[in-house]
Amino acid sequence: MTILTKDGDAAQMDSGTTRPKMNALGIDLGGTKLAAAIVCDGKLVTEIKKVPTPKGADKIIESVIGLIADFQKDHLIAGVGIATAGVVNVETGEVIGSTGNLPGWEGTQIKKIVEQKTMLPTHAENDANAAAYAEVHAAGLGDKKAVVTITLGTGIGGGLVMDGKLYRGQHWAGGEVGHLKISMDNKRLCTCGRWDCWEAYGSGSGFLRTSKEVIATIKPEQSNLANKLPHLTNEIVGEAADKGDPVAHKIIEIWHEHVATGLVSLAHALDPYCFFITGGMEKFVNFETMRELFIDRSLPIIGQNVKILPATLGTSAGMIGAASLVVDSMVNR
Amino acid sequence: MTILTKDGDAAQMDSGTTRPKMNALGIDLGGTKLAAAIVCDGKLVTEIKKVPTPKGADKIIESVIGLIADFQKDHLIAGVGIATAGVVNVETGEVIGSTGNLPGWEGTQIKKIVEQKTMLPTHAENDANAAAYAEVHAAGLGDKKAVVTITLGTGIGGGLVMDGKLYRGQHWAGGEVGHLKISMDNKRLCTCGRWDCWEAYGSGSGFLRTSKEVIATIKPEQSNLANKLPHLTNEIVGEAADKGDPVAHKIIEIWHEHVATGLVSLAHALDPYCFFITGGMEKFVNFETMRELFIDRSLPIIGQNVKILPATLGTSAGMIGAASLVVDSMVNR
Repeated sequence: MTILTKDGDAAQMDSGTTRPKMNALGIDLGGTKLAAAIVCDGKLVTEIKKVPTPKGADKIIESVIGLIADFQKDHLIAGVGIATAGVVNVETGEVIGSTGNLPGWEGTQIKKIVEQKTMLPTHAENDANAAAYAEVHAAGLGDKKAVVTITLGTGIGGGLVMDGKLYRGQHWAGGEVGHLKISMDNKRLCTCGRWDCWEAYGSGSGFLRTSKEVIATIKPEQSNLANKLPHLTNEIVGEAADKGDPVAHKIIEIWHEHVATGLVSLAHALDPYCFFITGGMEKFVNFETMRELFIDRSLPIIGQNVKILPATLGTSAGMIGAASLVVDSMVNR
Repeated sequence: MTILTKDGDAAQMDSGTTRPKMNALGIDLGGTKLAAAIVCDGKLVTEIKKVPTPKGADKIIESVIGLIADFQKDHLIAGVGIATAGVVNVETGEVIGSTGNLPGWEGTQIKKIVEQKTMLPTHAENDANAAAYAEVHAAGLGDKKAVVTITLGTGIGGGLVMDGKLYRGQHWAGGEVGHLKISMDNKRLCTCGRWDCWEAYGSGSGFLRTSKEVIATIKPEQSNLANKLPHLTNEIVGEAADKGDPVAHKIIEIWHEHVATGLVSLAHALDPYCFFITGGMEKFVNFETMRELFIDRSLPIIGQNVKILPATLGTSAGMIGAASLVVDSMVNR
């Protein structure tokens, strides 16, 4: 299956377009840590350096500049790509919508500041978009009408790549798929302050809420999970399922339905070539089960054609995508 | 507001690209009737001729050919655009997915047959796509990242225009938005045979089901609608609302929530410039109410920016879009 091979020459992956073999620094800027590595030709070529994300925009910028200077001691870099949480205006490089994970980050002119301080071409991108860009090109799917990459983490992020290019929407908010509605019950409040978002069910925190709801109704003699309710984690549920606990299996089944429901909605809007699933919760996905649920809820033309696949780049995707985007922006791709 | 003006020169609407002023025949092929008119430069230039849709693919083709010959008596036409229900492979011109409204239509090589029988360049397109194409260009919005046109009729159809071009998906099923899921309740079976589709709630038939569910719970002294349950129509509910019936108002309010929920999901996936609302149920839409519900359920960057607007071309949109598409295909737009 060509799309899962990773041994092709990245310079030839995108329909024959040659990508210049330049080193660029990719930085992944998340709520808890900053991770950075040098990327060339769609691959990491150094180790990843990590620092904790400090509090406040000024301190975050300081850490970003520090990481860049640190890599410049040993490497020449042609540009900096920053994958950040939040909505980014890619033209101005401003963070125009932040997430609760990065208080005070909204309004930061990240591209402008980094360019002024380092004199390096800089590209700032929403982290889910950067990851999606990396995954699609690593898989050689730059010629597909649409590929949707879904990050199942603490929340749900999405990135849309169409004909090899990121689709960012009219107001830079395309792919904010965590806030699709999968219910009208007003039962689960999302971190965004609204009800019934996909993220409130299908994310890692949604999984935990489902687990607690289910386990609160059972007795210790039905499942040992009842004893673990006060300090429950997703990993505890996952381990119980591995040991054959039927309640844990039921929780995971319900969560698969939650995830599948959002995929079905996206598929009927976009009819993509495939979904890539990534993020910390990807390890909980049984792709065969997910596919069955998806087919069961879809028009045949969608269910039979749209693939659901594991992404291949893991936590490096944001860095690789951001670095590739700054290089590609220099050659007008 | 420029987007609602209809007096501009259509040839100049699409970012200055000149559309050749050719006459083309636009045919709208629906479950109950075939409607056709000659279109030039994005406008109807003849009266609309209508014939009932016969049963069976061969008879439908016969009617299409008959309509073309009929118009050719008095007009020279450069091509034929056919807007048909069902999923269409636009490259081959084959209907690859049909709807319950046109039994036996799937598999018809509509483009090939019409071209062979008439020697006229022919373009076949899904009807919701054709309508969307017409609406976007009539409004001069060919430069927007995305515009989503939603047809609220017996079902729900959708058309996505991105940068002035139709987005049709990887398997020609892009914009099948009626089958987004807005619930996980397994309470409403859709005509597609699956549960909880947007169409089962937000369409005209969804409106009627909601009306019947609500009215079945009330007594004649609460609302006169209780007496009308056996022969209820959407129009009866609409008229009762106009006269101030509180139950009718409640039904319309619930339906607005159903419609808004699907719009919210689409908006967070696509972040379009605007939604155009069209179709037979558009007259039931209170755009101010819809907008409030939409904002209430959306991230601020979506809620504050994405517009919800009435479409302007009415039932002519399919004919205009199909005819424009065949002309534009001749000049490689």
